[in-house]
Amino acid sequence: MNKIKIVTVQNKVFEDKYETIERLAELIGDGAVSGADIMVLPEMWNCPYKTRLFPEYAEPETGDSWLVMSTLARKNKIYVVGGSIPEVDDEGRVYNTCYVFDRNGEQIGKHRKVHLFDVNFGEKPFHESDTLTAGDGFRTFETEWGKMGVNICFDVRFPESMRLLALDGAKMVFLPAAFLMNTGEAHWDMNIRMRAVENQIFVAAVAPMRDSGTGYKVWAHSMISDPWGNVLVDMGTEEGYTITEIDLDEIDRIRSELPLMCARREDIYKLETE
Amino acid sequence: MNKIKIVTVQNKVFEDKYETIERLAELIGDGAVSGADIMVLPEMWNCPYKTRLFPEYAEPETGDSWLVMSTLARKNKIYVVGGSIPEVDDEGRVYNTCYVFDRNGEQIGKHRKVHLFDVNFGEKPFHESDTLTAGDGFRTFETEWGKMGVNICFDVRFPESMRLLALDGAKMVFLPAAFLMNTGEAHWDMNIRMRAVENQIFVAAVAPMRDSGTGYKVWAHSMISDPWGNVLVDMGTEEGYTITEIDLDEIDRIRSELPLMCARREDIYKLETE
Repeated sequence: MNKIKIVTVQNKVFEDKYETIERLAELIGDGAVSGADIMVLPEMWNCPYKTRLFPEYAEPETGDSWLVMSTLARKNKIYVVGGSIPEVDDEGRVYNTCYVFDRNGEQIGKHRKVHLFDVNFGEKPFHESDTLTAGDGFRTFETEWGKMGVNICFDVRFPESMRLLALDGAKMVFLPAAFLMNTGEAHWDMNIRMRAVENQIFVAAVAPMRDSGTGYKVWAHSMISDPWGNVLVDMGTEEGYTITEIDLDEIDRIRSELPLMCARREDIYKLETE
Repeated sequence: MNKIKIVTVQNKVFEDKYETIERLAELIGDGAVSGADIMVLPEMWNCPYKTRLFPEYAEPETGDSWLVMSTLARKNKIYVVGGSIPEVDDEGRVYNTCYVFDRNGEQIGKHRKVHLFDVNFGEKPFHESDTLTAGDGFRTFETEWGKMGVNICFDVRFPESMRLLALDGAKMVFLPAAFLMNTGEAHWDMNIRMRAVENQIFVAAVAPMRDSGTGYKVWAHSMISDPWGNVLVDMGTEEGYTITEIDLDEIDRIRSELPLMCARREDIYKLETE
């Protein structure tokens, strides 16, 4: 009951959204993921990582890409943590959004990236806030194994993001992400592993493949860390998917040996959210 | 003005406190640290790491070991971040305490370990709380370069500990520590580097040498990380000291390229302390 087979999908992103969708279906088609439990897609899995393209590729909830994910879930009887896609709301605001579906294809969770990636490396600043609106909080969702949650990429750099989910009882956090080459090399592993270790949970970080020919070169290296910081899988840079079995009982074992979550000093500090 | 020479001292701890003090004086005697700015000592630098010994070795503030550190500071005209020693208060309570001295030997800071190391590895649990009382908060101290702060060992595993100091303006946090072999191998580097990276500050972690023949085998590897997570020095496992120059201007440079501290979503979460 506490073992979970996680499918991490490191897909190729094309300029043409429908080519991406078609290729994704080929990649994980023909019962490849049958018998697995949760499939995780990358950040912006259906859209090249360019701020000006986010509004152009954006869809409302229940749009084409949403439907693809819901159908993948239902047909494979698998949970789908839908990486992220650009979402447009009724007022025309665009978000970097992760939808989560259960084995029936029903939406059971939704996370809009809270910390937008506004950075100033080199000559060309990259500011997601030019075209995106930020999300308004972190919320766990319920699964047959208990609570889980989502951070999207830059969220992970703020310890508060995953801490809030862990304090709410999340045993696993999914991290659709697309780190750059420089920040990936320097900080990708440590962010994933340290968040798992400090919260004593599993973290599954999923990125698009390295070179999707779309101009924004990503670090890739989709990765799952256990609560001790062991890397259970590192997908490297190529297109593909892997299936990794995790054992949630590891959490209780590690928390009994090294009690961190119950040793927090709530009499001294409090991390609070609305 | 923003370059600081940090002396990290990885000393040998003897059963006899006065033998330790004598050896420490030999190690850093004869003007070895002259011209440096801040000297950092390890956690429990004057006492073998056994819970039953903490009350026995404990001294009141201004005791012998306190005086040794104050004198080191004054004679070498150097700040001393005094690792930690067992402190006994007027009511007989014992703490794991770091005293900080300025170049005149005046005490300018004090931190009592907030998170006591109570763990259950293997057959013999190790519970600091058997003999120690925990501290009641995190406070920065002022230096000629701005604010700095202290975490002691287990404090670092809780992201709140260093976050509170960084939010209060600390540019550097000192981490006297004595990780065990198993937790050291698994988590020492990542704790030091990740705290530096997520708070965009310098972290100087200082431990006793590997085998002090006192029963509690420590990981050692005293280490300084810059705000990008680069390891500026790793002292390995042997007795000794090193002098490392850091440049605090790195903080502003990195924070302008990768703005983390100002991108926190205080409208969504708040980390508060009394």
